[in-house]
Amino acid sequence: MQPAEMTTVGQYLVRRLEQVGLKHIFGVPGDYVLRFFDLLEASSIDLVVTCNELNAGYAADAYARLNGVGGICLTYGVGGFSVFNAVAGAFAERVPLIIVSGGPRNPQAPSRVLLHHTIGDMNLQYKIYEHIMAAAVILEDPEQAPDQIDQTIAACLRERLPVYIEIPMDLVAQPCRPAGPFTVDSSIPSDPEALTEAVGEAVQMLAAAQNPAILAGVEVARLGLCRELEDFVNYTRFPFATTILGKSLLSERHPQFMGVYFGRLGPEGVQKSVEDADVLLCLGALMTDINLGVDTATHFHGRMIVANSDKVGIKHHVYPQVGLRDFIQGLRAGLPRWGQAGQVATEHMALTGRSEFSPVASQKITLKRFYQAVNRWLGRHNLIVSDTGNATLLGASELFLPDGVPFIAQAFYVSIGYALPATLGAKLAAPSLRPITFIGDGALQMTVQELSTIIRRGLNPIIFLMNNDGYAIERVFHDGPYNDLQMWRYSRLPEVFGGGWGCEVRTEGELEDAVQQALSRDGELAFIEVHLDRADYWESLLRLKNLR
Amino acid sequence: MQPAEMTTVGQYLVRRLEQVGLKHIFGVPGDYVLRFFDLLEASSIDLVVTCNELNAGYAADAYARLNGVGGICLTYGVGGFSVFNAVAGAFAERVPLIIVSGGPRNPQAPSRVLLHHTIGDMNLQYKIYEHIMAAAVILEDPEQAPDQIDQTIAACLRERLPVYIEIPMDLVAQPCRPAGPFTVDSSIPSDPEALTEAVGEAVQMLAAAQNPAILAGVEVARLGLCRELEDFVNYTRFPFATTILGKSLLSERHPQFMGVYFGRLGPEGVQKSVEDADVLLCLGALMTDINLGVDTATHFHGRMIVANSDKVGIKHHVYPQVGLRDFIQGLRAGLPRWGQAGQVATEHMALTGRSEFSPVASQKITLKRFYQAVNRWLGRHNLIVSDTGNATLLGASELFLPDGVPFIAQAFYVSIGYALPATLGAKLAAPSLRPITFIGDGALQMTVQELSTIIRRGLNPIIFLMNNDGYAIERVFHDGPYNDLQMWRYSRLPEVFGGGWGCEVRTEGELEDAVQQALSRDGELAFIEVHLDRADYWESLLRLKNLR
Repeated sequence: MQPAEMTTVGQYLVRRLEQVGLKHIFGVPGDYVLRFFDLLEASSIDLVVTCNELNAGYAADAYARLNGVGGICLTYGVGGFSVFNAVAGAFAERVPLIIVSGGPRNPQAPSRVLLHHTIGDMNLQYKIYEHIMAAAVILEDPEQAPDQIDQTIAACLRERLPVYIEIPMDLVAQPCRPAGPFTVDSSIPSDPEALTEAVGEAVQMLAAAQNPAILAGVEVARLGLCRELEDFVNYTRFPFATTILGKSLLSERHPQFMGVYFGRLGPEGVQKSVEDADVLLCLGALMTDINLGVDTATHFHGRMIVANSDKVGIKHHVYPQVGLRDFIQGLRAGLPRWGQAGQVATEHMALTGRSEFSPVASQKITLKRFYQAVNRWLGRHNLIVSDTGNATLLGASELFLPDGVPFIAQAFYVSIGYALPATLGAKLAAPSLRPITFIGDGALQMTVQELSTIIRRGLNPIIFLMNNDGYAIERVFHDGPYNDLQMWRYSRLPEVFGGGWGCEVRTEGELEDAVQQALSRDGELAFIEVHLDRADYWESLLRLKNLR
Repeated sequence: MQPAEMTTVGQYLVRRLEQVGLKHIFGVPGDYVLRFFDLLEASSIDLVVTCNELNAGYAADAYARLNGVGGICLTYGVGGFSVFNAVAGAFAERVPLIIVSGGPRNPQAPSRVLLHHTIGDMNLQYKIYEHIMAAAVILEDPEQAPDQIDQTIAACLRERLPVYIEIPMDLVAQPCRPAGPFTVDSSIPSDPEALTEAVGEAVQMLAAAQNPAILAGVEVARLGLCRELEDFVNYTRFPFATTILGKSLLSERHPQFMGVYFGRLGPEGVQKSVEDADVLLCLGALMTDINLGVDTATHFHGRMIVANSDKVGIKHHVYPQVGLRDFIQGLRAGLPRWGQAGQVATEHMALTGRSEFSPVASQKITLKRFYQAVNRWLGRHNLIVSDTGNATLLGASELFLPDGVPFIAQAFYVSIGYALPATLGAKLAAPSLRPITFIGDGALQMTVQELSTIIRRGLNPIIFLMNNDGYAIERVFHDGPYNDLQMWRYSRLPEVFGGGWGCEVRTEGELEDAVQQALSRDGELAFIEVHLDRADYWESLLRLKNLR
């Protein structure tokens, strides 16, 4: 028998990253990781160097949301510690990310001298990442490394959560066994008896319901169950809403679609329709405060069925180990069809005012009418990226998206500054779609440098900088001088960063012109600064404020 | 007896921050911390809002280096996680920082709903910070809070390391006992017998030395021992060098000053002088790779006395529990005076070429001559901030500083991007000094937005952007396309961020003119882009490369 061909630990890891479907990986160079960077440069994976590490993390997160998996590659310490917040966000929102960190040579070797970029404890990065990972490993031995790599990456794909692989610089070139084919069984197994019992109870509740509804959430998309859910929705004829994190996972043109449920933060009509349900079937929705509109939706626990990726809660009890796919299939088989469908969508269309909007040239732009205007020209070749805030997520959540238009927002962890690097990542993951991005001024100031990488890569998003001169969402509830920002000449940022086109608009007429320009410049960045009134608050925020 | 007046937990903490000498605190607003922000706004402490959290951390770090203590105040999760890298740097370089994080209400209360900015585990931020803190606490009970606050802040001042205080939003306004006077005994106690033995052994070695030398490091400054050291140096007449982290802690005009020791990364003359010592007395120098010039200085352990804040190592053995102050005092009492002094400084002056430099108007700027030019006009009213890199730290380390000019660089942890926010922090800590800042292009891209806060506050640093088109220090040792950067129109950044003055220079004549302009515009930011050759590497880097 011939001995199997050998490879190196670094090459093995690169091969696995290729095999799971990474076409891009985001990172910043640093000496502990340069040997591995060379291997990436020699691979089919495009190494996208961002201006800083946090931005690499946000970009990879958005990339993963569209691509199914994303990757970051960084140096030890200064790199790994700087990206931590982005990875925590990915963990919170169940985004499968592979974090590859270079490491100082042989972490076990004693040293009289402290190594730069470290604080002395060579396991510190591993220790802090362990808390927000499906799996984490420091590779130490070339014989064990292949299995450790495989197990760690498999955990990422199975649990749809970030994983951490640290590769010391002197291990990169050490020989190991070659990388064969790689397949991961990512199905979530159910306990058959728990499944039967849970399905039975849920079927009984739903069959007796006068006014059932579905609330669908992001896990449906993460687990690849959109088709199953669509079939289930069509079969049952239940009206459905999505959470804000799950926005656009089913067609927003579907006749049973009620809108995006955002509790008190969303339109009153949608809130009412969902909360009036006598049985609410939540499928894959993360039970978070923002997702549920701050503090509503917990009032009707007694009439909820909450199915998440690996468990089902009914009223006040829980069935562990029931997979979401199995549960939906069980319901599909056990439920009779229900009433009639087809009425609900009209209301949603009315909410967004899509049908009736026409611009008034001299009129100052308001938030409400801005999103109505966007609704008019959004097309199937777009994807939406939204940051968090009064002028962004709250408005963008009500856009009435054409079929297949992805919606990317960090709508639970809500780390502002996410959207700009996320635009970079999303565009690279879906190159045929043109991103439409909404960012507040406070958010832009956090991560502004990534405009440079968008320009450098020749990408063509249309970015709306929603400038209301400060942290407006905080001003509504708790104002102080700390909510003010330095006023930048935002529209000149593209020029300074080396390309693209920028402008600023104040009226609906100027907005129309700018959009026309942006649409005609199809191959480059368009950066449109939208001047808004400081006190132009989204209506649901004001309602919420008045309740407090 | 009258009952003591009550205060609130939030007010108590603010009072302690005032009492330990914080005049500024750096932060970014976020809902979990706004109640505490209101108390800061009402206090004598100036709340400096930065563009993002990482930058707040770097600014506070530099502020602490000059002020003796610094503070950051942030929201939970997105805030605390984003600043982690800056705090790790502060820990590595022994910078006393107080981190105040808001927290979600009552972390012990069960919740059916996940809270935004969190990943579900409400102790996570505490858990990751614990590793890089002298002390960390989550305040939970208004009765215990005052003691917990006092103990935590005392640990910061005693150990010269960061500490972490998390204050849940619903605890801020709860009543507690009032804040009385606050004093911390920050002396480091010695074991008397270990002290006597260590001093005895060191005196014997030094008294017998033919060619002793002192290497002084940053802990001398952190522990407030500069005067003691100066006296010791004058008394013994030993020649001395400082580490790069300790640069300027003693006068660089002192006749016994040999220069900044940076191992192979520094001037060969200084390296030789230090390494030729038959007994090297290291006082407060962190034994780090960068401080010691990559990989030298470990070769002569057998002739070293290494005194750090709380222990002394001689040759290959260690005396724990010997305080640096006691050790210096012991040596001062036990040592005879040595030989003659006064010869060494000339060599250092020759190295920097201060005496002989005159600009040649049409000559393209080189790195070497750039720092010689800066040497000509640096004055006692300046402070130096340097980022890390070929065109920054390596050159700035050789500046021949006037007495009392502070030198701020993250010279061990070397997280690039540090210098721009650090300029903000340093200027606020030392308002009478005008910062001269050196930043590489890669570093600037990391944290560029903080120019905005410098402008917003009307600060007047002179910032040199050393533009060599990429990560030059990496190019020397390990080049690849990942070391390239997008070329920005850097000199127009001040305009976009709303103020200050920018220009770009290529020749020595243009540099002279720009410096004159900058000096005449004494009240505003001057941002000077210095175009350098891509291959203009600092000479010690090239030497180091050739050795490898």
